[in-house]
Amino acid sequence: MMEKKKVWVVNGPNLNLLGTREPEIYGHETLKDLEEQLTQQFIEQVEFTFFQSNYEGQLIDWLQQSVGHADLVLLNPAAYTHTSLALADALAAITTPVIEVHISNPASRQDLRRVSLTAPFCIASIAGFGLNSYQFALSAWLNQGS
Amino acid sequence: MMEKKKVWVVNGPNLNLLGTREPEIYGHETLKDLEEQLTQQFIEQVEFTFFQSNYEGQLIDWLQQSVGHADLVLLNPAAYTHTSLALADALAAITTPVIEVHISNPASRQDLRRVSLTAPFCIASIAGFGLNSYQFALSAWLNQGS
Amino acid sequence: MMEKKKVWVVNGPNLNLLGTREPEIYGHETLKDLEEQLTQQFIEQVEFTFFQSNYEGQLIDWLQQSVGHADLVLLNPAAYTHTSLALADALAAITTPVIEVHISNPASRQDLRRVSLTAPFCIASIAGFGLNSYQFALSAWLNQGS
Amino acid sequence: MMEKKKVWVVNGPNLNLLGTREPEIYGHETLKDLEEQLTQQFIEQVEFTFFQSNYEGQLIDWLQQSVGHADLVLLNPAAYTHTSLALADALAAITTPVIEVHISNPASRQDLRRVSLTAPFCIASIAGFGLNSYQFALSAWLNQGS
Amino acid sequence: MMEKKKVWVVNGPNLNLLGTREPEIYGHETLKDLEEQLTQQFIEQVEFTFFQSNYEGQLIDWLQQSVGHADLVLLNPAAYTHTSLALADALAAITTPVIEVHISNPASRQDLRRVSLTAPFCIASIAGFGLNSYQFALSAWLNQGS
Amino acid sequence: MMEKKKVWVVNGPNLNLLGTREPEIYGHETLKDLEEQLTQQFIEQVEFTFFQSNYEGQLIDWLQQSVGHADLVLLNPAAYTHTSLALADALAAITTPVIEVHISNPASRQDLRRVSLTAPFCIASIAGFGLNSYQFALSAWLNQGS
Amino acid sequence: MMEKKKVWVVNGPNLNLLGTREPEIYGHETLKDLEEQLTQQFIEQVEFTFFQSNYEGQLIDWLQQSVGHADLVLLNPAAYTHTSLALADALAAITTPVIEVHISNPASRQDLRRVSLTAPFCIASIAGFGLNSYQFALSAWLNQGS
Amino acid sequence: MMEKKKVWVVNGPNLNLLGTREPEIYGHETLKDLEEQLTQQFIEQVEFTFFQSNYEGQLIDWLQQSVGHADLVLLNPAAYTHTSLALADALAAITTPVIEVHISNPASRQDLRRVSLTAPFCIASIAGFGLNSYQFALSAWLNQGS
Amino acid sequence: MMEKKKVWVVNGPNLNLLGTREPEIYGHETLKDLEEQLTQQFIEQVEFTFFQSNYEGQLIDWLQQSVGHADLVLLNPAAYTHTSLALADALAAITTPVIEVHISNPASRQDLRRVSLTAPFCIASIAGFGLNSYQFALSAWLNQGS
Amino acid sequence: MMEKKKVWVVNGPNLNLLGTREPEIYGHETLKDLEEQLTQQFIEQVEFTFFQSNYEGQLIDWLQQSVGHADLVLLNPAAYTHTSLALADALAAITTPVIEVHISNPASRQDLRRVSLTAPFCIASIAGFGLNSYQFALSAWLNQGS
Amino acid sequence: MMEKKKVWVVNGPNLNLLGTREPEIYGHETLKDLEEQLTQQFIEQVEFTFFQSNYEGQLIDWLQQSVGHADLVLLNPAAYTHTSLALADALAAITTPVIEVHISNPASRQDLRRVSLTAPFCIASIAGFGLNSYQFALSAWLNQGS
Amino acid sequence: MMEKKKVWVVNGPNLNLLGTREPEIYGHETLKDLEEQLTQQFIEQVEFTFFQSNYEGQLIDWLQQSVGHADLVLLNPAAYTHTSLALADALAAITTPVIEVHISNPASRQDLRRVSLTAPFCIASIAGFGLNSYQFALSAWLNQGS
Repeated sequence: MMEKKKVWVVNGPNLNLLGTREPEIYGHETLKDLEEQLTQQFIEQVEFTFFQSNYEGQLIDWLQQSVGHADLVLLNPAAYTHTSLALADALAAITTPVIEVHISNPASRQDLRRVSLTAPFCIASIAGFGLNSYQFALSAWLNQGS
Repeated sequence: MMEKKKVWVVNGPNLNLLGTREPEIYGHETLKDLEEQLTQQFIEQVEFTFFQSNYEGQLIDWLQQSVGHADLVLLNPAAYTHTSLALADALAAITTPVIEVHISNPASRQDLRRVSLTAPFCIASIAGFGLNSYQFALSAWLNQGS
Repeated sequence: MMEKKKVWVVNGPNLNLLGTREPEIYGHETLKDLEEQLTQQFIEQVEFTFFQSNYEGQLIDWLQQSVGHADLVLLNPAAYTHTSLALADALAAITTPVIEVHISNPASRQDLRRVSLTAPFCIASIAGFGLNSYQFALSAWLNQGS
Repeated sequence: MMEKKKVWVVNGPNLNLLGTREPEIYGHETLKDLEEQLTQQFIEQVEFTFFQSNYEGQLIDWLQQSVGHADLVLLNPAAYTHTSLALADALAAITTPVIEVHISNPASRQDLRRVSLTAPFCIASIAGFGLNSYQFALSAWLNQGS
Repeated sequence: MMEKKKVWVVNGPNLNLLGTREPEIYGHETLKDLEEQLTQQFIEQVEFTFFQSNYEGQLIDWLQQSVGHADLVLLNPAAYTHTSLALADALAAITTPVIEVHISNPASRQDLRRVSLTAPFCIASIAGFGLNSYQFALSAWLNQGS
Repeated sequence: MMEKKKVWVVNGPNLNLLGTREPEIYGHETLKDLEEQLTQQFIEQVEFTFFQSNYEGQLIDWLQQSVGHADLVLLNPAAYTHTSLALADALAAITTPVIEVHISNPASRQDLRRVSLTAPFCIASIAGFGLNSYQFALSAWLNQGS
Repeated sequence: MMEKKKVWVVNGPNLNLLGTREPEIYGHETLKDLEEQLTQQFIEQVEFTFFQSNYEGQLIDWLQQSVGHADLVLLNPAAYTHTSLALADALAAITTPVIEVHISNPASRQDLRRVSLTAPFCIASIAGFGLNSYQFALSAWLNQGS
Repeated sequence: MMEKKKVWVVNGPNLNLLGTREPEIYGHETLKDLEEQLTQQFIEQVEFTFFQSNYEGQLIDWLQQSVGHADLVLLNPAAYTHTSLALADALAAITTPVIEVHISNPASRQDLRRVSLTAPFCIASIAGFGLNSYQFALSAWLNQGS
Repeated sequence: MMEKKKVWVVNGPNLNLLGTREPEIYGHETLKDLEEQLTQQFIEQVEFTFFQSNYEGQLIDWLQQSVGHADLVLLNPAAYTHTSLALADALAAITTPVIEVHISNPASRQDLRRVSLTAPFCIASIAGFGLNSYQFALSAWLNQGS
Repeated sequence: MMEKKKVWVVNGPNLNLLGTREPEIYGHETLKDLEEQLTQQFIEQVEFTFFQSNYEGQLIDWLQQSVGHADLVLLNPAAYTHTSLALADALAAITTPVIEVHISNPASRQDLRRVSLTAPFCIASIAGFGLNSYQFALSAWLNQGS
Repeated sequence: MMEKKKVWVVNGPNLNLLGTREPEIYGHETLKDLEEQLTQQFIEQVEFTFFQSNYEGQLIDWLQQSVGHADLVLLNPAAYTHTSLALADALAAITTPVIEVHISNPASRQDLRRVSLTAPFCIASIAGFGLNSYQFALSAWLNQGS
Repeated sequence: MMEKKKVWVVNGPNLNLLGTREPEIYGHETLKDLEEQLTQQFIEQVEFTFFQSNYEGQLIDWLQQSVGHADLVLLNPAAYTHTSLALADALAAITTPVIEVHISNPASRQDLRRVSLTAPFCIASIAGFGLNSYQFALSAWLNQGS
């Protein structure tokens, strides 16, 4: 029997409000719902750990700690995507592969959200599929090696 | 008898140094003094909770927690006014009304402080009355409905 | 009996249209209504003179004439906030204290309205309380000395 | 038995060189290989039509013609991502859902490739999985409704 | 009897979608309708040739070929207005007089559409009258000499 | 018999110099000539009022006063096209339809004249037909409803 | 006996405050003093007319009226130096020679005052000699022809 | 006897108008003349194929097809020099050596023509010798190896 | 016997990864090694306290707490050098002297790292000596007063 | 008898070509002519030393050496006006008063010549009177103290 | 027998290091080698004078002195290409024809080297043929008249 | 006995004025004092040669000549730090290690001094220790190898 992959799902600022915040953009499902769906869907293949913080420093700590403990990080840096050079440095420094995930398409919003500081240090990025973005990112990564 | 309003006063980075930092700009009163004056002046009408942090993430947490617990937030984001897209996202996401308060007039300082990322998501803003800015913001809000 | 304060209320371009222009932003009250409310509310303390002009030069004339005749100017420079260096020069040149007042929050509108040329030369600024902005600015100033 | 989905795969300038151009970035598989793999993998579910052109105008023509004939377009606009306002207009004008696909991560390359003119008009985007980007985009879309 | 004027109407990218694309902006009439109306209205005075292409190169070809064959070109360059230096070069190189025509007012849309590369090489421009823009441009030109 | 339309022709700074200023660009006809020609040409359909001022504030006054008294304003804001946010605000505030008219093509002159602040609030714009621009704008508007 | 030259001295916004405004920069002499000194010093050679206005439009009116009535204009546009495209247009349109005069050196103040819109249309400029700048400009012009 | 070199001469938009367009800049010789002169001058050494198109996509096609068929491409991208990222990508992707040729000096014209997107991917560039630029580029390349 | 100086060494984000991250830039020594070397080398003169955090807020807290407890702070703000206005405010507010230290030369890396927000509030800066930068900064400061 | 003033006239790059270079802008008089005219005109009051160099460093040397030896420097920095921060530093460092002189009006030429790095450190500036600019600058300075 | 042409070869800063500096870019031949090769190759037609200096002022001196003494200048301004407005002024002022020569392609290096200040005043430019650039530039010029 | 190191101290423009220029920033010690102090302090270890020039070209010459004759250059490029691309090229071309030294902190002065063109080509940089900056830079370098 194949060993389960260890995947860390790291969500950035304000994503704990999922389901309550601007539902016409982000939908009605909560972060809890997302975590349960992911756990269900990949129960055979993946062992998840879920993280969420509004602190830039906390997100950096987790990314650093992922080294040696996670096979993949799914990272949704939210607003820090566009302002955190320190988060980008952390991504450059660690060896864990990271996929950048966005629920909606940041490029279609305001100018300040046009440039991603973090994307250049991620192996891939996926955006705009709603909460399904996480599942598709994970499927893509799991199937890549097969 | 009318019920007291619940007001959260949330102060951002370096405002804990009030009274010690550049007194020619910020005056000699401390954050403690401010809190006592506010409590005294509005003792009949307002039940205060006071917050101060140098952490962007902590400020976001408090803003999120204000939902359902505060009738108004008086927010002085200090330097984060100009750099924190994540704080702006938090303001956009919550339903608590927030008034942006500044002790001095940021616009009369350096260029970097000309643009406020947070102001567009506040119901009003007030700046330049020294520590009185907080009291005037609160008076204004209390009298608005009367 | 204490002497009444002399306050000049100086309104800039298009504010004479208040109540007719974009009422969803500016409300249904007219400039006339505003003047009457202010007069009523501060009848004991303040002697008002009201000014409105669409001319940059006229506004500068009035600001200059306020010296020695007004104890305070409440100035809403409207669009000239963002384009009139000459108005800013007038503010820098006069000794009358001036408070900048805006009905809505200019920062939450288009980019061109992000920077205020006049704010650096005002003692304080207040924005976003609707027509109440004028009253709150005046209350704040009157109470500051008490 | 369920009807097959009609999917158009539209590739932009220089993608006909796949497999010969900078293989350390783009790999050794050709566009032909990609088309065969896609056909094989989704043989039960999808009926493909494949397009490639170096002409901005040709790509616009195809996008327009997709209306009523395709259920989905997978579009890799390559360099036109960053320069073609006309392509963006075409995307805004048509009703066919389009997913933007990139083999590598354009954001990690030069500055000129930081901004996508086309992304705001696509329902989602996926980048950085090599040629698998196409397959993952398609899987994601097929599974979204299930 | 006076000889009819030869007028070429050259429409740029996505204008073939007229009547189907964003009807709240562009109305319900199609390009076909426009051509028929123009033909009808100026039947005594003008012999029309109608062109539309999504190809920048095709538009340049036509502009070049107009020399000696057309007395006037009515050009709606659509998105190429703002990105095509090559089209501007063609306009500078030919001797046929050209009037730039826009259905809506590009200046009232996004920033990218603020600057026209082609206008400096046209004898006049007209915008914002809907499909009537073409007819008014033509009337203006016909009556100018009378 | 149909009622005449009331049209206000509002000309901005330096247009009173028409016929004397840079005749190689603006021609030899004076503002007086223009007014007479317009009156003659539309004598059956239009009742004109003519305005010209070098004062930004005066132009704003007139635009405001046009409400309820004019069916259309033909506005040539000249240099204020590019610098007057207050004029733009006036246009946004009034309900009279306004067509922006320019004698020459501002876009073909210096960079500072590339962007129009006023155009987004006009129903249409016309430029480059010399003094005929006014007549063509008016014809276009009159015929639009027929 | 030689005929006196007609010289118009046109001062822009806030220069009526000379002697009261920031005396450490502008000195203690008033505009009245300046006019008397000029009249005295050039009593044999020059017939002066003095103008001052805070209105951009008034300054343009005077510049236009100078044609045929003044042999020279000494213009201190003050803040309009940097913001008034309309004033620059007036200067371009008139045939009266104009010398730009500044009391202090605008370039040594803030960034917004670095660029002069009016200078390109003046025959010369002089700055930084305090009130003497006017006299030196005039001497220079008078002696130029001798 | 040495084998002739195969040289493709690829000319971009509007160069088919050579001899007719702005002769004071580009001279009176036509593209045909150029081709004949080149053929004559290098008849012993070079076998030419001549291309010209106004289509960005066509130019990219030819550059791609040059691989294996041409020993050298002389490319005059004209206006696409400054706007075509796709052409630059094609140059980066092919192995044929390319020399960038310009008839006049683009740098001495307007700002938009200051930057060349294509030059970084060419082995050399030559500009300003009129039509002789082509011949000198070719001579230089032929003699380089000798 | 002279009293030991109290020196706080405050390291910013990702510096806890020293020795593991990009060793070709940062070397193989860890933060632990650095701390031991500093302690050893200055054992007679300095009493050290070592801090490292990935949190902007934590770094501000420590800087504030240094007042009255440290004679000098050696601060390596890492990525926050370029993005944290709040850190700069803290430096401006405290009286402890601070020297900015960088292991490599940030100026020789990407554009985003060209400007230091914190340097203007430090008494000196040192960069590019690898881990020795800390020791040299300290030696320099210790010897300055001797 | 009053002592003569010592005045150094320092001319920057390419001014040695006066009279030969673009005479339609700079006139036909040579630098030699200028020096003789100045000597003649001020023979009673001024003892001149004349300098010209194309070297930035030489100009800085001379400015430094003027301290204690010159009562005034007339400096025409020509192109270095706009590019030499080192020359500006020299002006800031010396105590000799310096007047900036320009033959024509740099502001009316290209954009690169809009900003003067040196002007902020000069006591005054004069431009546009042709070679007379030197004489007027000197007259102005001599008469200032009288 | 035809008279030899007088050609000055003027090399700018750091070109004296040719052959020692970054040989992978600039090759192993020295400036001496270049001079000898040129002399040899054109011994029948050209009389050379060779110049090299790291001083901007010296290069300007030489360019000025070339008038009347040189039939052509081959100028490689190296870094001064991009920073020296004074050198550009010298080129504009002299009548000697100048060809700009670069060993490698500056456009393919960093951003600062994208714009040439000197090119607009040269009759032609050639770049990227290594040291052969000089020879090709000269051949081109010699053959142009034949 | 260990051989002394050869160190060249190269000072740029206006540093010869040390002790006389703005002593509140640069102190009262002269360049002579600095040289004597350095000689005294490192008499056992270092053989100094001192250079100062206001000429960019001279500084480049010296940097080039240092190769093979100096073990280290201490370079204070002063204003050329920010404007001299040629100096940066020299640093890139030579093999002598160079440390950039500044007396004060350029970053805390005006914007123009924010970016260093030379720093990327130096092995280290030190700023803000006053004249001690030189000594600390040298100590650091000497001790680095021990």
